[in-house]
Amino acid sequence: MNKHFQIILFAFLLSFSVQAQEALFRPQNIISPEIHADNSVTFRLFAPNAKEVQVTGDFLPSVKMDTPMGQMDGPGKATLTKDDKGVWSLKTQSLNPELYNYSFIIDGFSTTDPSNPFLIRDVASATNIFIIGGGHADLFKTNDIPHGSVTRRWYESPGLGMDRRITIYTPPGYEKSSESYPVLYLLHGAGGDEEAWINLGRTAQIMDNLIAQGKAKPMIVVKPNGNVIQDAAPGEGNQNFYKPQFMIPKTMDGTYEGAFGDIIKFIESNYRVKANKANRAIAGLSMGGFHTLHISRYHPNTFDYMGLFSAAIMPREDATGKVYSNFDQTLKAQMDNGYKLYWIAIGKTDFLYKANQEYLEKLKGKNMPHEYLESEGGHIWRNWRVYLTQFAPRLFQ
Amino acid sequence: MNKHFQIILFAFLLSFSVQAQEALFRPQNIISPEIHADNSVTFRLFAPNAKEVQVTGDFLPSVKMDTPMGQMDGPGKATLTKDDKGVWSLKTQSLNPELYNYSFIIDGFSTTDPSNPFLIRDVASATNIFIIGGGHADLFKTNDIPHGSVTRRWYESPGLGMDRRITIYTPPGYEKSSESYPVLYLLHGAGGDEEAWINLGRTAQIMDNLIAQGKAKPMIVVKPNGNVIQDAAPGEGNQNFYKPQFMIPKTMDGTYEGAFGDIIKFIESNYRVKANKANRAIAGLSMGGFHTLHISRYHPNTFDYMGLFSAAIMPREDATGKVYSNFDQTLKAQMDNGYKLYWIAIGKTDFLYKANQEYLEKLKGKNMPHEYLESEGGHIWRNWRVYLTQFAPRLFQ
Repeated sequence: MNKHFQIILFAFLLSFSVQAQEALFRPQNIISPEIHADNSVTFRLFAPNAKEVQVTGDFLPSVKMDTPMGQMDGPGKATLTKDDKGVWSLKTQSLNPELYNYSFIIDGFSTTDPSNPFLIRDVASATNIFIIGGGHADLFKTNDIPHGSVTRRWYESPGLGMDRRITIYTPPGYEKSSESYPVLYLLHGAGGDEEAWINLGRTAQIMDNLIAQGKAKPMIVVKPNGNVIQDAAPGEGNQNFYKPQFMIPKTMDGTYEGAFGDIIKFIESNYRVKANKANRAIAGLSMGGFHTLHISRYHPNTFDYMGLFSAAIMPREDATGKVYSNFDQTLKAQMDNGYKLYWIAIGKTDFLYKANQEYLEKLKGKNMPHEYLESEGGHIWRNWRVYLTQFAPRLFQ
Repeated sequence: MNKHFQIILFAFLLSFSVQAQEALFRPQNIISPEIHADNSVTFRLFAPNAKEVQVTGDFLPSVKMDTPMGQMDGPGKATLTKDDKGVWSLKTQSLNPELYNYSFIIDGFSTTDPSNPFLIRDVASATNIFIIGGGHADLFKTNDIPHGSVTRRWYESPGLGMDRRITIYTPPGYEKSSESYPVLYLLHGAGGDEEAWINLGRTAQIMDNLIAQGKAKPMIVVKPNGNVIQDAAPGEGNQNFYKPQFMIPKTMDGTYEGAFGDIIKFIESNYRVKANKANRAIAGLSMGGFHTLHISRYHPNTFDYMGLFSAAIMPREDATGKVYSNFDQTLKAQMDNGYKLYWIAIGKTDFLYKANQEYLEKLKGKNMPHEYLESEGGHIWRNWRVYLTQFAPRLFQ
């Protein structure tokens, strides 16, 4: 490299951005998190003026928190140690394979790790993530295998009177093939949107890996936005940037379920799909499990595969709206029409555990065929990613 | 809403995520940044234990920094004031329409705004953003107009011996049309990747808006990854998560330019495009301007439109590699073959200003037709977004 070239590159380093400039003059080029060969992890933070630095995240054992709802699981915390250069650090024990999230707490202030640019937004918060590979966590990684495509596009929803954004995974080879594919409609929870499954859920990585391993059929995975007052995820729609709220009006009042036909129609008229019941699956987490329950019942001869992941079971037998009415009759119609799989999964400490047990009793009372998976843990993305790795291989076989 | 439903929703709020739980128990539901009707902005941060809180960002006047390269522009800072509840705040004056970025500095520690989940990664740092609407900044917003699609997919690059990720914008109506479209190849700078133009550059919003206003022709915009040792952006490729470096080996040694034909071939055999010189444009910022210069010269009868945005002009007349050799002859060949537009733009305080002036002199000496735009400001994304809004309308007319 000649001298002139070196100077130019150095100048790049200085002026490319505010951040690059700051980075250059920092006393430490911090690596955090550093994942060691034995799967222990070192977190580091340069904060010479801080009095206390803690890390909190789901790699730590959870602790009990008192809330108005009673005791619930909360995230554990661990305290970092400062060296003479002002760098705080903490080395964990070996961690199990998993995708973890974490934040730092600096003198009581919860914030992101400035050395880790990999963040995922969950409702209104951005949190750092890292992956400990091995086992099922290798399904969350990008591996050197054929990759599907992920498209964000907009479709017309006459039922909701607007154009809406949708995220669509097509499997490796879709573009060059003349084949038709089955479709999984994959629904997010409250506070989520059409970005949730692809970002928090690692859907593209999971599907690429399962398909490459021959464990799942090549399929299209459609991730719509389930908040009927939004045209798109916060920051991506006509409202542009605003602070997302957890409770979004009209997401569980039947409007979405009633207009879901717009999405099926859009997919089936714009993609090479097998447009029949045997090649349609629908699944969702939490509120998306609620939507799955009601959409599949309201359209009782449309889907052969249903997945309720930590579903917000609210039969709403008192509700009088069109979608929620005739609950028992439509559930019976769905059963009588037949299907291949009605799959329910929930964690033992999920706050919806009891509601799911009641729903299981209801299904048993009706002799309605179903499968049930009970996992450890609560109402968390860690479970929903794993449920997807278990549910997808069951589809379209 | 019935009582049961309320309880379930409240439980959701509590347990949906670590962040949601924390948010619920915070004493303040902070809104930051809050953009007022007069385009002033209030920043807020809840940090009762902090001794000093500052905000830094490109909405503040820049300040001179001493560096080993001499004085350069650095970001300004302003100090927030604490109220009796521990909330720090600062209200700015009215700001001009623009997309701005900012960070907080808490007792010397630079960090993101926990109340603003909208972040953009630039090299290894994530920075908060906000938009003051009006004027050209409305082109950066999502408006209620037809939207194009953005696809992340993988293509085979025999020239680099790997599958590589690429980001492709197709204009509104592409999927349902039978038309063929022109193509703009849009290249990132050093430290960037195939995510840079779509995220930092707001390409999808700019193109949607220009097309809806009739100011730009509907076109496909292709955003490849210009780092030949990467298969994809950090976090999206086979290396998975790691701390991105600014200086990436082999990005400016001719390898990329030599293999660029793989990208053109992929696009022209997979999209409905007008595969001729009159319908090909290439542009890039900084290192991408360098790539544009050399790719368009090395393939001297391929593109009718060239855009060099704050280009890293390094003629490298001393270089002997295949791509950089015969500089003058190939530039003359490009001129003699003819083209519609050779567009050069740079800011007055850009550290590459002098190199660009020398290149302009060289073009004048060769009577090589070109247009030159000189803007305020330096080597910053603010300029590159604006250059795209000025360059795209000139294409394929």
